[in-house]
Amino acid sequence: MGEARYHPLSLVESDDVGEGTRVWAWAHVMAGARIGKDCNIGDHAFIEGGSTLGDGVTVKNGVLIWDGVTIGDGVFVGPGVLFTNDRTPRSARMAGAFSTQTQGWLTPTVVEADASLGAGAVIVAGVRIGRLALVGAGAVVTRDVPPQGLVVGNPARRVGWVCHCAQKLRFRDGLARCDRCGRLYVESANGPILSEAAEG
Amino acid sequence: MGEARYHPLSLVESDDVGEGTRVWAWAHVMAGARIGKDCNIGDHAFIEGGSTLGDGVTVKNGVLIWDGVTIGDGVFVGPGVLFTNDRTPRSARMAGAFSTQTQGWLTPTVVEADASLGAGAVIVAGVRIGRLALVGAGAVVTRDVPPQGLVVGNPARRVGWVCHCAQKLRFRDGLARCDRCGRLYVESANGPILSEAAEG
Amino acid sequence: MGEARYHPLSLVESDDVGEGTRVWAWAHVMAGARIGKDCNIGDHAFIEGGSTLGDGVTVKNGVLIWDGVTIGDGVFVGPGVLFTNDRTPRSARMAGAFSTQTQGWLTPTVVEADASLGAGAVIVAGVRIGRLALVGAGAVVTRDVPPQGLVVGNPARRVGWVCHCAQKLRFRDGLARCDRCGRLYVESANGPILSEAAEG
Repeated sequence: MGEARYHPLSLVESDDVGEGTRVWAWAHVMAGARIGKDCNIGDHAFIEGGSTLGDGVTVKNGVLIWDGVTIGDGVFVGPGVLFTNDRTPRSARMAGAFSTQTQGWLTPTVVEADASLGAGAVIVAGVRIGRLALVGAGAVVTRDVPPQGLVVGNPARRVGWVCHCAQKLRFRDGLARCDRCGRLYVESANGPILSEAAEG
Repeated sequence: MGEARYHPLSLVESDDVGEGTRVWAWAHVMAGARIGKDCNIGDHAFIEGGSTLGDGVTVKNGVLIWDGVTIGDGVFVGPGVLFTNDRTPRSARMAGAFSTQTQGWLTPTVVEADASLGAGAVIVAGVRIGRLALVGAGAVVTRDVPPQGLVVGNPARRVGWVCHCAQKLRFRDGLARCDRCGRLYVESANGPILSEAAEG
Repeated sequence: MGEARYHPLSLVESDDVGEGTRVWAWAHVMAGARIGKDCNIGDHAFIEGGSTLGDGVTVKNGVLIWDGVTIGDGVFVGPGVLFTNDRTPRSARMAGAFSTQTQGWLTPTVVEADASLGAGAVIVAGVRIGRLALVGAGAVVTRDVPPQGLVVGNPARRVGWVCHCAQKLRFRDGLARCDRCGRLYVESANGPILSEAAEG
């Protein structure tokens, strides 16, 4: 992998970017952003100081990541995904006109390892998206998503569970074998429990 | 505040930008756009000629503002917010192939002072968003929003009222005191009426 | 029209762009993208290799078009429209960690001639959007859209039919004359059939 590589039209002001990470055209990584190894940061993405990305994160084009957002290893952040860090934004607050909220307004967000966020998903500040979860394209996430949860819609609601390979699981009698990769899961109140790895 | 300041990677073609306004990387302010004082225009934002922004407007990254859009003083336009100015777009129209609509297709939009538009909100041409309203993240606004209205969803529906500080208000017996800033409101058919300012 | 024209701040790596096409600031057309004549590609748009655009296509600002997407002549792709090409994305897949899906993951999408996609629409991989259809602003399209179909919402549902000029049609007794352009349509199970052109 070697050193991080930056497209000549990118703007990388952070000195905390891991080996093998690539940053593409017109993407902006601000000072104070921490980015792991072997990430891929697409065109027009923006990563603010105070955010943290693990290793092997894919950040597709046009994604906006703010101070207070923590993204685990191996997460897929689809094209145009929008994070937020303020549940009650006011332009005037910065100027002090609306008092009382000049501090403590930042609400952190966490995306656990290997989750995938579909194109155009909007992640409202304060949620935790569980490991290997799949957020459908265009979903507006206002509540926590459990590990391997599949959520869609506005507001996002859980409509099922997904496999490690991201395929939707179909449980019958408390068991599901993935249509695509063959992993076997046992159903539990907290979601699928991997029973047997894929053969492939 | 002094002069407007433009990031060297921005593109500002308007000569009608107020003092103290800052424009960041890869943001494009076209000729004919009018922008007030002390605004902040984030990376990758686009502001077309024929649009007007008041003073103290925050335009977060990736926002698209078109001819026909008027934004009042102190408005917060969240990341990735999309405006529109045409309710019936056709590519061929510009070439005259679909006759009859080569003129008069532009539908204006107004956002009143101190409103806040959450991340990824889509504002359909022709609406008026009232003073201090809060449009939730990912909302698709197809109808007018009253002052201090809180709207969410696709299409956006009003689910409550917000305080000057943007906190959701909880009315009981016709009164609401903001949980956060302490302002007191009286309920009316047209929304909250400020009765007493915050102490803080 | 003559040659294609590229803004000095654009990045066009494809050599398959038709005459008269214009590409604006910070737009990126990758090698292997095929773009027809007289298209207009707005600021911050991204067009990946393996995608195909017909003639006279309008691609507004910030649109993301991927390998596997085919867009017909005369299509209007509104601001911030997001395409996708993978229904089950995982960041780790590229590194082989989730086996079995390193091939065959790309799902193609087709937009037929003269359709219009409203601002911020998200097009889930695998759908076909019919000729002259109108996808409403902010719609999340998860299923095929019939020709002249009008779809809105998340997920997008068909709520009517539109005229060639994009105006919504109002059928009565199996006939609709467009309010705006005067075209006359006969209702059929598959949508409107043009009976008589507009006078204008």
